[in-house]
Amino acid sequence: MATKKQILVLGGGFAGVYTARHLERYLRPEEASIVLVNQENYWVYQPLLPEVISGLVGLMDVVCPIRQLCPRTELVMREVEKIDLANKVVVVSPGFRPRPLELPFDYLVIALGSVSNFCGTPGMVEHVRPFRTLADAVSLRNHVIYTLEEAEIETNDELRRKLLTFVVAGGGFSGVEVLAELRDFVEKVRRSFPKLRNQKARYVLVHAGGRILPEMSESLALYAHKLLGKRGIEIRLNERLVGATSEKALVGSGFQIPAKTIISSVPSSIPLVLQKLACEKDGGRLKVNANLELAGHEGKVWALGDSASVKTFSGKRAPPTAQHAIREAKTVARNINAAIRGGSSTPFAFEGLGTLGSLGRYSAVAEILGVRVSGFPAWALWRAIYLAKLPSLRQQVRIALDWLLVLLLPPDFVQMRVVREAGIARQHFEAGETVFFQGDLGDKVYVIRSGECDVLRESAGAQRHVATLGPGDYFGEMALINDVTRNSTVRARTNMDVLLVPKNDFEALKSSIPSFADVFRKLANARSIGNPESATK
Amino acid sequence: MATKKQILVLGGGFAGVYTARHLERYLRPEEASIVLVNQENYWVYQPLLPEVISGLVGLMDVVCPIRQLCPRTELVMREVEKIDLANKVVVVSPGFRPRPLELPFDYLVIALGSVSNFCGTPGMVEHVRPFRTLADAVSLRNHVIYTLEEAEIETNDELRRKLLTFVVAGGGFSGVEVLAELRDFVEKVRRSFPKLRNQKARYVLVHAGGRILPEMSESLALYAHKLLGKRGIEIRLNERLVGATSEKALVGSGFQIPAKTIISSVPSSIPLVLQKLACEKDGGRLKVNANLELAGHEGKVWALGDSASVKTFSGKRAPPTAQHAIREAKTVARNINAAIRGGSSTPFAFEGLGTLGSLGRYSAVAEILGVRVSGFPAWALWRAIYLAKLPSLRQQVRIALDWLLVLLLPPDFVQMRVVREAGIARQHFEAGETVFFQGDLGDKVYVIRSGECDVLRESAGAQRHVATLGPGDYFGEMALINDVTRNSTVRARTNMDVLLVPKNDFEALKSSIPSFADVFRKLANARSIGNPESATK
Repeated sequence: MATKKQILVLGGGFAGVYTARHLERYLRPEEASIVLVNQENYWVYQPLLPEVISGLVGLMDVVCPIRQLCPRTELVMREVEKIDLANKVVVVSPGFRPRPLELPFDYLVIALGSVSNFCGTPGMVEHVRPFRTLADAVSLRNHVIYTLEEAEIETNDELRRKLLTFVVAGGGFSGVEVLAELRDFVEKVRRSFPKLRNQKARYVLVHAGGRILPEMSESLALYAHKLLGKRGIEIRLNERLVGATSEKALVGSGFQIPAKTIISSVPSSIPLVLQKLACEKDGGRLKVNANLELAGHEGKVWALGDSASVKTFSGKRAPPTAQHAIREAKTVARNINAAIRGGSSTPFAFEGLGTLGSLGRYSAVAEILGVRVSGFPAWALWRAIYLAKLPSLRQQVRIALDWLLVLLLPPDFVQMRVVREAGIARQHFEAGETVFFQGDLGDKVYVIRSGECDVLRESAGAQRHVATLGPGDYFGEMALINDVTRNSTVRARTNMDVLLVPKNDFEALKSSIPSFADVFRKLANARSIGNPESATK
Repeated sequence: MATKKQILVLGGGFAGVYTARHLERYLRPEEASIVLVNQENYWVYQPLLPEVISGLVGLMDVVCPIRQLCPRTELVMREVEKIDLANKVVVVSPGFRPRPLELPFDYLVIALGSVSNFCGTPGMVEHVRPFRTLADAVSLRNHVIYTLEEAEIETNDELRRKLLTFVVAGGGFSGVEVLAELRDFVEKVRRSFPKLRNQKARYVLVHAGGRILPEMSESLALYAHKLLGKRGIEIRLNERLVGATSEKALVGSGFQIPAKTIISSVPSSIPLVLQKLACEKDGGRLKVNANLELAGHEGKVWALGDSASVKTFSGKRAPPTAQHAIREAKTVARNINAAIRGGSSTPFAFEGLGTLGSLGRYSAVAEILGVRVSGFPAWALWRAIYLAKLPSLRQQVRIALDWLLVLLLPPDFVQMRVVREAGIARQHFEAGETVFFQGDLGDKVYVIRSGECDVLRESAGAQRHVATLGPGDYFGEMALINDVTRNSTVRARTNMDVLLVPKNDFEALKSSIPSFADVFRKLANARSIGNPESATK
């Protein structure tokens, strides 16, 4: 062993963090330095993430600083931008200085997990919430509280029903747990809202398969289905979410669910930086051998977790769960140790101990080493196992206290919007949907990216068609410029995608870029002089 | 008493919430309905806000849902946009539907507090952090953790020193508490950062007066000054923050402090909606009489808290503290009760029981009913009083546990960025500062709002002046369009204010608005053909 080896671990989920922890144990500091790259400086205890929605677990308690879990590992809190296998270097995003940082490596571990992939389905990116990261969980919780606050003061019945409808697409563990926690939260909290006490909320689970929880045996799935049904959750099997707008979820069979909250746990793919990586793929994931070495880069590069096509002992694809990632991490660390110190690689040989899923409110389903358990015993087991598996004492104590206090104290439903403005955004409209109504307040400018819309004006009780706008056209600026309400109604004629420029951004651009202001000045003149009817505020 | 009266309370701080609580106690539901308008659905226990920075108190534990504190009050989670005293109606911001909501009232309580007001000082809005709301505290904590993570991996010494310098302007209670907590947090947490263990962080308190803590007697202020000095805090008296850039704080005497973190607790004014209100003002605040009635609207409108010019019993202006707001709230509620049921108004007569301020790490200064206490006894008293004053059991239990656990568990320094993109923003440069360097990554376009900058290009070791740009000019777009690094260095020639358009927003606008794209296409042509030298990526 001549020089100190550089081991680079990409990703700070279960797979990455546990690899680093094992490496710290196997190798002495003078043998190898370990660097871990992760966008966040914390690791998330993913299995408890749904409990953040309901506040059963405090949002700061499901996470732990990576530096505390791997004290000997150097953490680089940046994003991975490029992996250069030939030159053995990884480029990460810049920090305060706009310079890329290059990290060389002797051994590379790829554990970047998977990302939500809503591309291709209209309106999904804009209007469907993923549920994958802590930020997703916090954002969902805040959104749900906002819908309840608005439902309480809303006088329009149709809108109030939309505000109280919650749709989850995907009936696997993740989707079921999210909807179960969301329902428990809404049902518990709405007692604090006088006008919502007698309002029924609607919860819909849309699942593409013939039964929910495909990860489990049929009897447990049926048990779960019945239990969720009893709690008022509407389960729609053999249906698929095919589109979404800000007003509704579109389901494959042509069915529509008017709702302001749509969540999908379904589509995922490996991150873009791995998609671009010049190496063999297997079913969209990085191809690895039984030793978890990247195909074509054996002995130098390992891949594991959700990014890699890992096979279990019996040859099935390893599911994206913590128990598998932790075992894979141990195999990778052991094999890197063998590569550095000399020795033979060992293959990954784990089949899974079982499956566990919470159904909320003291119920769960579990299948452990072939034994099926359901209801309260499964729930108690679920909590005990997850608490025991937490790697840090801080989290164990805080989560145990969270679970205890929630029984004693009134629920918390604080809505924490740290950032208000969304900036320039996109929105999808289905044909026939209204963009805004005459008389509405104007707070943004719309630019049509694709599709068409009709401009309609009401006067003396009659509605007239004033203009049709298409791609590249913009509308809604007049209400901003003159600070008045919309002077017409705009309705999508076809499916339509727009860019939203908020009032503040629009005004900043207009006042700073003369030619940008010119564009709108000319348009305003054309609309008010050339064709006074087509002026659209 | 013929009809049910409508009482409208604007603001959900100590003043507003305690007014609603007292009104709930005094009046029967059939006598009056109480509506409270607040932007957030929670009330913040302001005195403990600095402890959120250090994580001594969990961020969700300093807040409480307003609905739980005032169960009989209708909460409207919206922003107050207009107060129409003549027509007795308040207009609030829209929710999901872009329609304004009008709230009529018989009796109005104005308790909208104060807002940060950085206007007029160059760079303050862009580069100085206020410390007033929970969002400010969370954002500051996240920023500080980010600077530590970056300092750990930064190789440039100058930048590392900037990352480890923390400046607070304002040496009153608020500024002192913020800097003391910030220092404690950084000193505790940097032990988890191997490279920062031997790095010294710099803490600077800039105060305009001749001694800190003007709220207290001189002997206690001197005690605090010495103690903070011993803990490594640099105190600069008789100095004022006069400007800021992303790189440094500018102090009145011409002194500069290179720093990436600048906080100001100083400037405040009443919210814009109150500034516009047609009524008498006194020192920039709403003028009220001894009964806290708004001048000219006696018997109908009351104002209290930081929005109003309330006088104490001895005729001094009431300080912006919780103890005063709570007593004012009781006076207002009693006087509204008198107005509804008949009876005479009572004047506000409270002098203040004393002052209390934490200095961090088991020290505080206190002056209660004339008795001066300092050090640990003051700190113990401070904690006991604040814990006892919490209105909800949930918060008492959780905060007591937070304080206990912090002694037993390792510190938490999770960096929670929920939102990444900032959108279109502004930046201020002082003359001579570099905007970007040749070779930097390009991630935004700059539009000059005022001032000028030089474009400099280095080749074969020599730097040449290529162009000077002024208001309305933009630069930096070439690196985005061609996805390469900056081909020149841009430096501010005079003080300069710019608009930053992030890459994503720039591309969305360019691809959706043909005329916007044209502007940049023409510019690119002019720069590369007409004058190849002036092309600025």
